[in-house]
Amino acid sequence: MSVTLKDVAERAGVSRSAVSRTFTAGASVSPRTREKVERAARELGYSPSFIARSLATKKTKLIGLVANNFQNPAFLEVFDLYTRALQQRELRPLLVNLTDETDPELSVRMLRQYSVDGVIVATSTLPPDFARAFREAQVPVVHAFGRFDPGVNVHVVGIDNVLAGRMAAETLVRRGYGRIAVIGGPEYATSTQDRVAGFTRRMAELGRTVSSISYAANYTYDAGRAAMVRLLDQQGGDAVFCGDDLICMGAMDAARARGLGIPGDIGFLGFNDMAMASWDAYRLTTIRQPLRGIILASVELIVELAEEPARAPEVRLLACEIVERATLKPLP
Amino acid sequence: MSVTLKDVAERAGVSRSAVSRTFTAGASVSPRTREKVERAARELGYSPSFIARSLATKKTKLIGLVANNFQNPAFLEVFDLYTRALQQRELRPLLVNLTDETDPELSVRMLRQYSVDGVIVATSTLPPDFARAFREAQVPVVHAFGRFDPGVNVHVVGIDNVLAGRMAAETLVRRGYGRIAVIGGPEYATSTQDRVAGFTRRMAELGRTVSSISYAANYTYDAGRAAMVRLLDQQGGDAVFCGDDLICMGAMDAARARGLGIPGDIGFLGFNDMAMASWDAYRLTTIRQPLRGIILASVELIVELAEEPARAPEVRLLACEIVERATLKPLP
Repeated sequence: MSVTLKDVAERAGVSRSAVSRTFTAGASVSPRTREKVERAARELGYSPSFIARSLATKKTKLIGLVANNFQNPAFLEVFDLYTRALQQRELRPLLVNLTDETDPELSVRMLRQYSVDGVIVATSTLPPDFARAFREAQVPVVHAFGRFDPGVNVHVVGIDNVLAGRMAAETLVRRGYGRIAVIGGPEYATSTQDRVAGFTRRMAELGRTVSSISYAANYTYDAGRAAMVRLLDQQGGDAVFCGDDLICMGAMDAARARGLGIPGDIGFLGFNDMAMASWDAYRLTTIRQPLRGIILASVELIVELAEEPARAPEVRLLACEIVERATLKPLP
Repeated sequence: MSVTLKDVAERAGVSRSAVSRTFTAGASVSPRTREKVERAARELGYSPSFIARSLATKKTKLIGLVANNFQNPAFLEVFDLYTRALQQRELRPLLVNLTDETDPELSVRMLRQYSVDGVIVATSTLPPDFARAFREAQVPVVHAFGRFDPGVNVHVVGIDNVLAGRMAAETLVRRGYGRIAVIGGPEYATSTQDRVAGFTRRMAELGRTVSSISYAANYTYDAGRAAMVRLLDQQGGDAVFCGDDLICMGAMDAARARGLGIPGDIGFLGFNDMAMASWDAYRLTTIRQPLRGIILASVELIVELAEEPARAPEVRLLACEIVERATLKPLP
């Protein structure tokens, strides 16, 4: 059914080798022959197989896009931006969902089987074994939203989560809140660990103690709500720095269910600036993570690494900013 | 750097052909040889290249997953379920984002270049040209969340949107609402057209007229809010059937901003039952679309079609159900 190189050669009245050369970048072919071949290919609807061609060029133009965040709406924008940025460079994302995956070797083997030109791992909760396995397989890897780990030595693009934690502490203290709690994201996420560390350190520098630190089980509304119910039953507080916007919305609803006024009785600071952070029912003051910048930088880096795989690992960190809405008291 | 078939053959002390047969489904090889080859492959970390192998088997195990719904949080679950269902069958999703794409031929050519075994198009807003181009390229196509079109003749898995519209009309009338409006999804979506048609027909059968029909520009909170502001400025109403949950949440907040009580002054019925439909601030009564069932059925179908590409197009429709929360008056 499908058109072959031989069909094109016959129609164009040239050799098969001439057709092959026409579709090989850099190969020598006369303008006249090229024109004949291209016309015949157009007429027959022929497009040279990437699969056959990739055996010669050693490039498949496939990029593995590995994620495990399929519960977090922020990742829909992440997928959108990644697929568009890759497509604009004529690269194609081969999607790998690690949710059910416990053996890193399986994912690595699969990505090698398809001879991907590189892998972007987009998660802050990647078990170190995965990154190590990708790197040992000699596949260029960029870890987006990750933390640089000298033991793993993989390229990282993301934000400085320690700095973001410091920014949160400063923001809450300057608004006049006194009993400040943290409901972090999952404790095993490096982003959570770094934000809590930065937060705690900055609080200490400002002469404050953190009222309590707890963690939501995952990045969901329900987990945030449950963590806030525990917080209210125990230490309480007058402001909460949350691990992400969804956790924060759940926490806000738990506070409102107890009759607490926001931001007077209790203030909330989210993270990410997801679309729903601006909904009337929440109007969340939050720390915006530069998703687009992180994604464009990691695509740029993986393209460079596909050409220069041995380059020493580097870290590219982008800046966050506060988005002011209605869940914190104004500056005094 | 990478291990070749030749290396494995040498280590196992067998011929290259024996290694090749070991990794070819259905090829004849003695248990003793297989064991030797598999041990050598394991020791050397060899995995046969899918790309090389696909040239022989004519199967790449790649499935194109085509979407244009990267703004709708419901699609995060769709991507999650698709990638997992495909991975469980050792198939790999090659993601195509149509958001920027205006020429169907480009997407089709790309998917043919990678020799995908089949394509799942997951959207209710696919321009007919795309489906036609895929079909003409002789690639098996399943259109999930679509409407069967005899002119295009592509396999469809989804819900009966006409029936869902009828269900909505019946639900609102039985709760005692009288001035019932529709804020549909985008008007060009076949799902919108079918739901509105079913809704209007059932209302007529029940001796009612639809108070007003309008459309949100897209499946977002902001579009729903804007459409509801227009509705309140013009015809008003005491109940609204919305195109999806996000549109419905935006509409609810517009109503609340005018001081209207839900569900007493005005009732709302959503669509999809997304995670946020159960949040305290909304508690949305909504029509649940069986996402998991649609996705599993479309993966099953694409697997069958990869084996039997010429099969006559079929339509698999799954049932919806009402999820009762707090935005409609109880049954009298």
